[in-house]
Amino acid sequence: MLLRGIIENLDIEQASSSVFTIADLGCSTGPNTFIAVENIVEGVTQKYKTKSNSNLPEFQVYFNDHTSNDFNTLFANFPSNRGYFGAGVPGSFHGRLFPKSSLNFVHSASALQWLSRAPQELSDLNSCVCNRGRIHYANAPNEVGEAYSNQYAMDMESFLAARAEEIAPGGLMAMIIPGRPDGTLPSQFSLSHLFCLIEYSLIDMVNEGLVSKDKLDMFNLPMYSPSVEELRALVEKNGYFSFAEMEIHETSIPLPPARVCRAGLESFVCKHFGTEITEQIFDRYSAKFAELPQGTAAHCSLISLFILLKRRRI
Amino acid sequence: MLLRGIIENLDIEQASSSVFTIADLGCSTGPNTFIAVENIVEGVTQKYKTKSNSNLPEFQVYFNDHTSNDFNTLFANFPSNRGYFGAGVPGSFHGRLFPKSSLNFVHSASALQWLSRAPQELSDLNSCVCNRGRIHYANAPNEVGEAYSNQYAMDMESFLAARAEEIAPGGLMAMIIPGRPDGTLPSQFSLSHLFCLIEYSLIDMVNEGLVSKDKLDMFNLPMYSPSVEELRALVEKNGYFSFAEMEIHETSIPLPPARVCRAGLESFVCKHFGTEITEQIFDRYSAKFAELPQGTAAHCSLISLFILLKRRRI
Repeated sequence: MLLRGIIENLDIEQASSSVFTIADLGCSTGPNTFIAVENIVEGVTQKYKTKSNSNLPEFQVYFNDHTSNDFNTLFANFPSNRGYFGAGVPGSFHGRLFPKSSLNFVHSASALQWLSRAPQELSDLNSCVCNRGRIHYANAPNEVGEAYSNQYAMDMESFLAARAEEIAPGGLMAMIIPGRPDGTLPSQFSLSHLFCLIEYSLIDMVNEGLVSKDKLDMFNLPMYSPSVEELRALVEKNGYFSFAEMEIHETSIPLPPARVCRAGLESFVCKHFGTEITEQIFDRYSAKFAELPQGTAAHCSLISLFILLKRRRI
Repeated sequence: MLLRGIIENLDIEQASSSVFTIADLGCSTGPNTFIAVENIVEGVTQKYKTKSNSNLPEFQVYFNDHTSNDFNTLFANFPSNRGYFGAGVPGSFHGRLFPKSSLNFVHSASALQWLSRAPQELSDLNSCVCNRGRIHYANAPNEVGEAYSNQYAMDMESFLAARAEEIAPGGLMAMIIPGRPDGTLPSQFSLSHLFCLIEYSLIDMVNEGLVSKDKLDMFNLPMYSPSVEELRALVEKNGYFSFAEMEIHETSIPLPPARVCRAGLESFVCKHFGTEITEQIFDRYSAKFAELPQGTAAHCSLISLFILLKRRRI
């Protein structure tokens, strides 16, 4: 999908430089980021080889994630026979990370669901839209989903504005984003099962006096999955990108066990509730997970949006 | 010194790009690397401001050190109000780290004394030049110093060849290197006191049966301090750089206490002798250090070479 997208859409006639720069945003520590980068390098190389009059460029790859990412592990995992120069770039992709027009290809897989923060009004105990007793917009009133959708719009506007500056005209940006079907409300997000198991664990702990009710009411996970409509509107509002490819994939995946769920969410849970409580939350998640009926209830439908954008020449 | 060197020698008429790229090689974890980079950015900015028809470029700074460097700490220490885009680049500066002609300024302070490895023949128990009972060339026979000098020449040739490819024509490279006066032999290196305290500690431990004699005989520190003559010959042999500035500074510094010495050498000592023995070596260093007479014997004369090279337009 990525390979075909590159071969069909990359304009190498325009690439004046002898360096082709790639950035993977939200790279974590590997190996997924290395596999993605290898695919991109292969696609670009194939495209260059079909043009006999172009020399193959050298590749510079930037691996980006938050400053708190374990870059030491990322660097230790660098493939030894990589065909590119590698660098780590710490910082939030909701802001600028690279000089103007310095990137030829941006990739971001399973990272753009993270918001810069949960919508503030949902964590405000004095607000009429405070998201009491829940940790997400799944199964919540519509105004909770709307607050998340608004935060997502702000974050994606910042993201697209930064990338519009950084990606050279004609450059590509590939994104794999967990999304939801068009025509559905945010609250109908298919991974609601996942958050419910944590939510129920926390409610039990409030009832047992182990966690204060206010603390639970103030906690909301900073994750959002858009519909294609929402994403399309944001890209069009930004104006600097055209759609080169878009595909929607629906797969049924088993509900992730505590270990997987913890890997993704621990840092947020731990920061809000403290280390000791976190241990208990995921122990309880595990117990509830084990009690789930085997079958459809233990599965969730995952909708993945693959979007390839092209930086317009404006 | 660095600031004046940049203002007097940087050719910004030739800089066609809107990005000015800087690399600090052997950066460690800060704050020295950030201070150096700030000085370079300031010097380049001053130079640009004297030319009213040039827009100030954006700055991209690459922080390089071995993969085993603590990049997580480096990134956590990034100045929050920095006027540049920052990236970490893991790998040895004895090889290629960046694409061709992609750097405008390279800086390396107190890092180029590290060899890629100690001369192999000195650690070979069957070799007639095996450096028995010593851990360095300080106070050693001339052939030991020569073996170190040869290894340094090979490493600097690799270093200069890699930088000649990476630095754009007209770009600058500033190096601060612990050296020794012209006309002296390697064995007259002024920091010999430092290595002797470790050497004596190890010899005591061999005599007490705590370390095998062979293990000591096979250990040599991978550090070398060149004379200006040596460096000049290597730069001229490479041929891609001209000397823009060269200054020699001599200062008398107190012999470093165990803590400082350990910070620099622990990884090598630990890798060869093992963690438990390392603890003892530096404890013994500390005891010997405390017994030193106060005065000249506890000082060493440090010779610092400041060299500014300019990448020729060939």
